[in-house]
Amino acid sequence: MSARPPGEARIGLRHGAGGPAMRGLVESLFAAGQREDAPDRIGLGALDDGALLRVGARWLVFTTDSHVVKPVFFPGGDIGRLAVSGTVNDLAMMGATEPLGLSCSVILEEGFEREALERIQASIDATCREAGTFVVTGDTKVMGRGELDGVVLNTAGIGFAERPVRDDGLRPGDRILVTGTLGDHGLAVMARRHDLGLGEELRSDVAPLNGLVRAALAAGGEAVVAMKDPTRGGVASALHEMAAKGGVGVLLQEAELPVRPAVRAAAELLGLDPLQVANEGKALLGVRPEAAKRVLEALQAHPLGRDARCIGVCTPERPGAVILDTGFGRRLVAEAEGELLPRIC
Amino acid sequence: MSARPPGEARIGLRHGAGGPAMRGLVESLFAAGQREDAPDRIGLGALDDGALLRVGARWLVFTTDSHVVKPVFFPGGDIGRLAVSGTVNDLAMMGATEPLGLSCSVILEEGFEREALERIQASIDATCREAGTFVVTGDTKVMGRGELDGVVLNTAGIGFAERPVRDDGLRPGDRILVTGTLGDHGLAVMARRHDLGLGEELRSDVAPLNGLVRAALAAGGEAVVAMKDPTRGGVASALHEMAAKGGVGVLLQEAELPVRPAVRAAAELLGLDPLQVANEGKALLGVRPEAAKRVLEALQAHPLGRDARCIGVCTPERPGAVILDTGFGRRLVAEAEGELLPRIC
Repeated sequence: MSARPPGEARIGLRHGAGGPAMRGLVESLFAAGQREDAPDRIGLGALDDGALLRVGARWLVFTTDSHVVKPVFFPGGDIGRLAVSGTVNDLAMMGATEPLGLSCSVILEEGFEREALERIQASIDATCREAGTFVVTGDTKVMGRGELDGVVLNTAGIGFAERPVRDDGLRPGDRILVTGTLGDHGLAVMARRHDLGLGEELRSDVAPLNGLVRAALAAGGEAVVAMKDPTRGGVASALHEMAAKGGVGVLLQEAELPVRPAVRAAAELLGLDPLQVANEGKALLGVRPEAAKRVLEALQAHPLGRDARCIGVCTPERPGAVILDTGFGRRLVAEAEGELLPRIC
Repeated sequence: MSARPPGEARIGLRHGAGGPAMRGLVESLFAAGQREDAPDRIGLGALDDGALLRVGARWLVFTTDSHVVKPVFFPGGDIGRLAVSGTVNDLAMMGATEPLGLSCSVILEEGFEREALERIQASIDATCREAGTFVVTGDTKVMGRGELDGVVLNTAGIGFAERPVRDDGLRPGDRILVTGTLGDHGLAVMARRHDLGLGEELRSDVAPLNGLVRAALAAGGEAVVAMKDPTRGGVASALHEMAAKGGVGVLLQEAELPVRPAVRAAAELLGLDPLQVANEGKALLGVRPEAAKRVLEALQAHPLGRDARCIGVCTPERPGAVILDTGFGRRLVAEAEGELLPRIC
């Protein structure tokens, strides 16, 4: 801990942004005493979407997320749908597409409206049904007025992966698929928070993806070599992590990036790059070249994957870098430090 | 939801107190859409310390808790030790004494001191070592200044129970054992919060109990028929739940209740009943009469069980009631509504 950089004596919003500052905090502090990975346990040291624990001949995936989104209700979703989807998706990203069950812990501010809580709970119930799972255990805490801004939720989840998929499997030549349009969640939340008046054009994509991922794995089998959901930090952060862990560069084709016109307009208005904005109903898949077409077609045949695209390819050059081919030239894609998007999920 | 009582339009501190108001909220709202228990899934409908999920021939226990204790550091412990112990203990109460792993999600207020976070993390690491487990997955969120009072932690945990123990197994004649003194955690936190100046005499009992429970189960086997840790709401709430679910009355002997003199003094000063105050390193065990002595001796032989006592017996009369025999007569033990002890864990 003595290696702490100067000026880091206090936690900043960037430490929750999903980018390099957060990874640094997790690596230097949270994972430091807990990184003793073993043959039967792939835990915090791997910094993946969840942990893998050996149970007999199978791998159990275990994952958790807290949700602090503001506002609690936003176009296309709410904190309950976000929490269930986030955990179902983290399980799916590691290959566990049939959750055994979820936990849900709610922390409420004294005075929180019971009616809002009922709406959130109804959304949790509906999203669980959509994903084919249940909340099996929970907890309730209440903090005093002014001690918490409304409500935060934590969900954890467990599920078996017949064949675990990690986020470090990329090799040169692998194709990068995205299951749909980019930036919808982050811009829907920001537009509502700043009252941009963009009406119903901007809607969060928040959704449980386990059915979509099941279809992709059925089509691609072992050729699906890496998966990650581009939440906080967006596609830029997710691909940086996947590229660094796989030891490859990622070359994206700008013309192939699916971005809705309303998202593009709002991003320009707010000075944001859709590549750096959170998605809550999208996945990135790294697929061996010979299976890419088959997996893409399987994605596009699913209601949640109609806008799926092949957006890039892995290269042996510039390992760890994400490069955008704009059609006129190439530029490095930077990771957001994220101070502009606090409490996006 | 239309049956909501008048005056319940907003959440109050009592909804987080571990007593009847919280149980009502969980039953009427959180569990309502998720209570479809099945032969292979004992979930929210059972309102136990955690869920039981069938995996092949075994039962997997899954549990979660959020911790919002104030202050974060208190005599005898801190929020990190509390979170790990709380989850390890919930697993142990259902018979899973060797956790597969824990998740840990931290939500921080912008500006939280890095040094305090390092102390909390060191405590998490140390408590995990004590319990023989690891944090295998986690999450970090940051809220803005004034949006959260410092830090809250969520931990979830999983572990196999070779023989699950529920909280509903009490029958008339069963003995009630407690593994040590009562009220230490709640009064240590309250004394620190109110600056009572009781110095080091009041210390929280927060500790992982899985080793102690393992010893009890080894000694008692199937004769250990019910377990629960008396956290929020104290022994009074825990025994009320166990008595109601088992359909028995519980008759306690006041002379046998182990309470430290400093705890008794502080409780009197604050107008609290040690039976209603949270413990974080104690368990209640319901044991068949023929095995009670054997289990009690096994508890007392363990460093965390030296003050274990047999404090009562289950009766066929007054199912659901907890009755205290004072030596001069009998009185009903009430559950605390808990408004006096917000953020005790």
